[in-house]
Amino acid sequence: MKRTDLALEVRESIPEDNKEIQGVVLEKNTDEEKQMEITKVLIKDAQGAKVMGKPIGTYITIEAWALEKKLESYYDELVKTIKDYVEELAGGIMDKSVLIVGLGNREVTPDALGPKVIDELYTTRHLIKEFGQEFKEKHGLKTMSALAPGVMAQTGMESREIIKGIVEETRPDLIIVLDALAARSVNRLNCTIQLTDTGISPGSGVGNNRKALNKDSLGIPVIAIGVPTVVDADTIVEDRMESMLEGQGFSEQEIQSFLDELNAHAMKNMFVTPKNVDEAVSQISSILAEALNDCFVPKAV
Amino acid sequence: MKRTDLALEVRESIPEDNKEIQGVVLEKNTDEEKQMEITKVLIKDAQGAKVMGKPIGTYITIEAWALEKKLESYYDELVKTIKDYVEELAGGIMDKSVLIVGLGNREVTPDALGPKVIDELYTTRHLIKEFGQEFKEKHGLKTMSALAPGVMAQTGMESREIIKGIVEETRPDLIIVLDALAARSVNRLNCTIQLTDTGISPGSGVGNNRKALNKDSLGIPVIAIGVPTVVDADTIVEDRMESMLEGQGFSEQEIQSFLDELNAHAMKNMFVTPKNVDEAVSQISSILAEALNDCFVPKAV
Amino acid sequence: MKRTDLALEVRESIPEDNKEIQGVVLEKNTDEEKQMEITKVLIKDAQGAKVMGKPIGTYITIEAWALEKKLESYYDELVKTIKDYVEELAGGIMDKSVLIVGLGNREVTPDALGPKVIDELYTTRHLIKEFGQEFKEKHGLKTMSALAPGVMAQTGMESREIIKGIVEETRPDLIIVLDALAARSVNRLNCTIQLTDTGISPGSGVGNNRKALNKDSLGIPVIAIGVPTVVDADTIVEDRMESMLEGQGFSEQEIQSFLDELNAHAMKNMFVTPKNVDEAVSQISSILAEALNDCFVPKAV
Amino acid sequence: MKRTDLALEVRESIPEDNKEIQGVVLEKNTDEEKQMEITKVLIKDAQGAKVMGKPIGTYITIEAWALEKKLESYYDELVKTIKDYVEELAGGIMDKSVLIVGLGNREVTPDALGPKVIDELYTTRHLIKEFGQEFKEKHGLKTMSALAPGVMAQTGMESREIIKGIVEETRPDLIIVLDALAARSVNRLNCTIQLTDTGISPGSGVGNNRKALNKDSLGIPVIAIGVPTVVDADTIVEDRMESMLEGQGFSEQEIQSFLDELNAHAMKNMFVTPKNVDEAVSQISSILAEALNDCFVPKAV
Repeated sequence: MKRTDLALEVRESIPEDNKEIQGVVLEKNTDEEKQMEITKVLIKDAQGAKVMGKPIGTYITIEAWALEKKLESYYDELVKTIKDYVEELAGGIMDKSVLIVGLGNREVTPDALGPKVIDELYTTRHLIKEFGQEFKEKHGLKTMSALAPGVMAQTGMESREIIKGIVEETRPDLIIVLDALAARSVNRLNCTIQLTDTGISPGSGVGNNRKALNKDSLGIPVIAIGVPTVVDADTIVEDRMESMLEGQGFSEQEIQSFLDELNAHAMKNMFVTPKNVDEAVSQISSILAEALNDCFVPKAV
Repeated sequence: MKRTDLALEVRESIPEDNKEIQGVVLEKNTDEEKQMEITKVLIKDAQGAKVMGKPIGTYITIEAWALEKKLESYYDELVKTIKDYVEELAGGIMDKSVLIVGLGNREVTPDALGPKVIDELYTTRHLIKEFGQEFKEKHGLKTMSALAPGVMAQTGMESREIIKGIVEETRPDLIIVLDALAARSVNRLNCTIQLTDTGISPGSGVGNNRKALNKDSLGIPVIAIGVPTVVDADTIVEDRMESMLEGQGFSEQEIQSFLDELNAHAMKNMFVTPKNVDEAVSQISSILAEALNDCFVPKAV
Repeated sequence: MKRTDLALEVRESIPEDNKEIQGVVLEKNTDEEKQMEITKVLIKDAQGAKVMGKPIGTYITIEAWALEKKLESYYDELVKTIKDYVEELAGGIMDKSVLIVGLGNREVTPDALGPKVIDELYTTRHLIKEFGQEFKEKHGLKTMSALAPGVMAQTGMESREIIKGIVEETRPDLIIVLDALAARSVNRLNCTIQLTDTGISPGSGVGNNRKALNKDSLGIPVIAIGVPTVVDADTIVEDRMESMLEGQGFSEQEIQSFLDELNAHAMKNMFVTPKNVDEAVSQISSILAEALNDCFVPKAV
Repeated sequence: MKRTDLALEVRESIPEDNKEIQGVVLEKNTDEEKQMEITKVLIKDAQGAKVMGKPIGTYITIEAWALEKKLESYYDELVKTIKDYVEELAGGIMDKSVLIVGLGNREVTPDALGPKVIDELYTTRHLIKEFGQEFKEKHGLKTMSALAPGVMAQTGMESREIIKGIVEETRPDLIIVLDALAARSVNRLNCTIQLTDTGISPGSGVGNNRKALNKDSLGIPVIAIGVPTVVDADTIVEDRMESMLEGQGFSEQEIQSFLDELNAHAMKNMFVTPKNVDEAVSQISSILAEALNDCFVPKAV
């Protein structure tokens, strides 16, 4: 089965002649000057959610395909772009207080994105508690706390349990969750950022609230920010084969029979990454951290 | 001011002619064969707590001074000794469910002890939730969850807030907290383990429950396990000078005047560690993790 | 193009009806009890070298497919097996002095195998120089030195240049080179060890001595020990597609035309690894280090 | 015995009434605006070398005591200052080719400075060999190679042996050696850079060329750049005690008797570092790497 966590790629996988999907709005905006491509997928109703297999809400994808050139000005532009969309999704809530959660396992390189971002944040909640409202206003701070809880195999607890407990104890007004994602296209690895106001909903996005991190399960708004760092190895084989077979004029049915054959020999837990995955994950993590710091903590502190 | 987190060293600092302190019982037990020294300090009442500056309870110190020889049999003996004292302090609670918390900052070597132990634990709570009571009994498991929350400068939250939230959400029956300590003697660094049923009480141990991690603040029993990984630089200068001046026959008053002079030029945030602190902290962390795994997860899993 | 660094996989890729290749001897030895499979590929002459695209010599492959079970007894067996084959390939030279070189980039997880092994070796050359022949004999030591030079992008120098300079200055009698390899089969990742007396010969193994690390280029015998840690992403797509097309009865020519199409869209620098690659590389590195330490430094030191 | 690797601190330790030392010239230059203090110690003849216990040559110390404020403009100024003094010491040789060597053990935080700098260099030697003289001139490159050989306990070889072999094989015209140093003053840790054209001469600086890295032992000029990252624990105790005793009016003889007593109880392998040593070493390593990259590789590449 082809696996992707990007709403954009789910939308792309729906055939051409079906361009208008009821309940789903697509806005593409290639900014040639900025060398970025911004796509918004709006899932507007239950019909759209069913077709897309994802909850109703807004999904913004920033494709920063010039990131590999390592230009400082491009970094700055990307930081600013991410910051703007975080603010757009958060609305006025941001002025209250935010808990930022970095999901993932810091010992597994492509999964370490969340913890790496958390490592570079400047939290302020404890300072504001200690030095008071005047201090907060003088420095233009917002209240930010942060946590990298680790994965269930490390903690023995669901991320939802850990976060819910902390939310009830520390009472933030907004949660931002960071996570590494899987994409279908290798070209999107480590240079694509998806932001959504739907939180994180494993599986089909319908039901299964036990693991979900969203307003339903946590009681306050949840923004999820994700970056694809791997492609599933089976997905890449299937994708390549499918496009080749289509190019060769095979029928849809024949193609399906090939793919079924393939799936019978699936590789479990095998992922495609670029060779420089350690460096690439560090780079995009730093960019996300800088964008979030810019949202909540002015430079001068 | 001389700083130590070891009850044993506080007890040692009280002058000879005062050997019997009311409310404090000292049991020393040098095991020549095992090449370990076990000391129990029992603080029995408010009088003892006041003199010692620590809460009422039991403090067990294991000095494993042959650890540097790196003998496998000695490791095994130490693991077993730690396991036995954890079980002694925990009593029957261990059979219920435990949350193990590794305090400290994983980016600061001498402070990374707690997170390093957590990294090597085999948690079971999620497995038992998934596979049920039968699975638990078949493998002789106990219910263990674990977290390394990070320090306040990283999270913006007190450790107490994070742990309290998680305790209320996941309902363990016992907490074990791991932390790096400061000692007075360099000979005790990275080879001494203090176990106590009093939890962690910053400051004088009286009042200040805001930061304390104990039964009062968390609602369930808290065992603290600590290992000294640093000596405060001012403490070492003061200690050396004091013992030298005593040896030279100076009066107590003269000595005090020297020490006051010293304190006027205190070094802030300077610590004494052995050169191999990275390796030594990793070694003792692995030993603690193995002892805790042995408590809760039998080898065969 | 299908890429593999394992002589065994090159041999496997040659069609069935061609089982006897002139100049190439294949010995397979599945040890059911040990749960390992040992294969020897002997390339005996120029004809065999041409067909195989590898230099004349002995290639031993140990497939330790039960490694994932993490049994201590299996580790010990594997350590002993590797040690035995190192001694077989080294012959009497081992009693003289050895330089162990860990190739690869320690910042890139699947490439860090070599440096990780070096980190765990107990070198003896400096001790023997300081304490003399008597010390050496008393402890049954052999003379071992070690280096992880880094890759050319880090050093600006060929590994051959660095090693050749050190060889001329320190005069070892044998070199053992460790390196991460690419395989075709994902099942062989991080659990397969190839040992060869031909050193390392990039490219076709014919000519190109500029980068080669072998007796020709370095003047002393070179044993190479490699472990596959990645599969090239294009290789995996091609392999899967080829086997599927064969199963569907396509002609060799049709298959080739599909593969040409595939190659036109090759993914550059994309690799397949298991998700736990960090842990798996650490595990096999420790096993290799233990085997090499056992060869040169008896346990008791 | 008081230990320091800084020529500046050796000079400071010579009593006041002896201000003019024959054969030693001291130039201090506090740049209030830059918030840096630059000191040059010139050892001009054998008499000066004997008094100072260091070889004849130039020792430049940059004290960047405002580094802790973490201002970007101050970083830039410091990078430029280091670059200028490297160029001053190197003279015209820099236009030829340079080998940069990072001494120290990357597993031991305060000793990891050298390897950390090497990790951030952009080497060019291999590029120039591949793309030729035209490429070099077009991009304004100089020929730079780099190595972090590890310490003798890791390699079994003297650093001098490794470097000498590589020098003879790759023929650079200049060596720059980076190393972590010990200071006497905790205030100088991780914010002081010493540059010298005398290379590295362990011990008294007289004789003992076996371990020295200098023009005598390597055949080409050697610039050493060092940063103090630790204070020896005995040194700090001795220093504090000495200054206190002097303040209390003790005679020189009495003080000496106290210090002898102290030395009888020396702590071996104990060092004083600030708690944030991991972060501080990373910061100054990045600054050194940027200065060296600026010397040899223009920004635009």
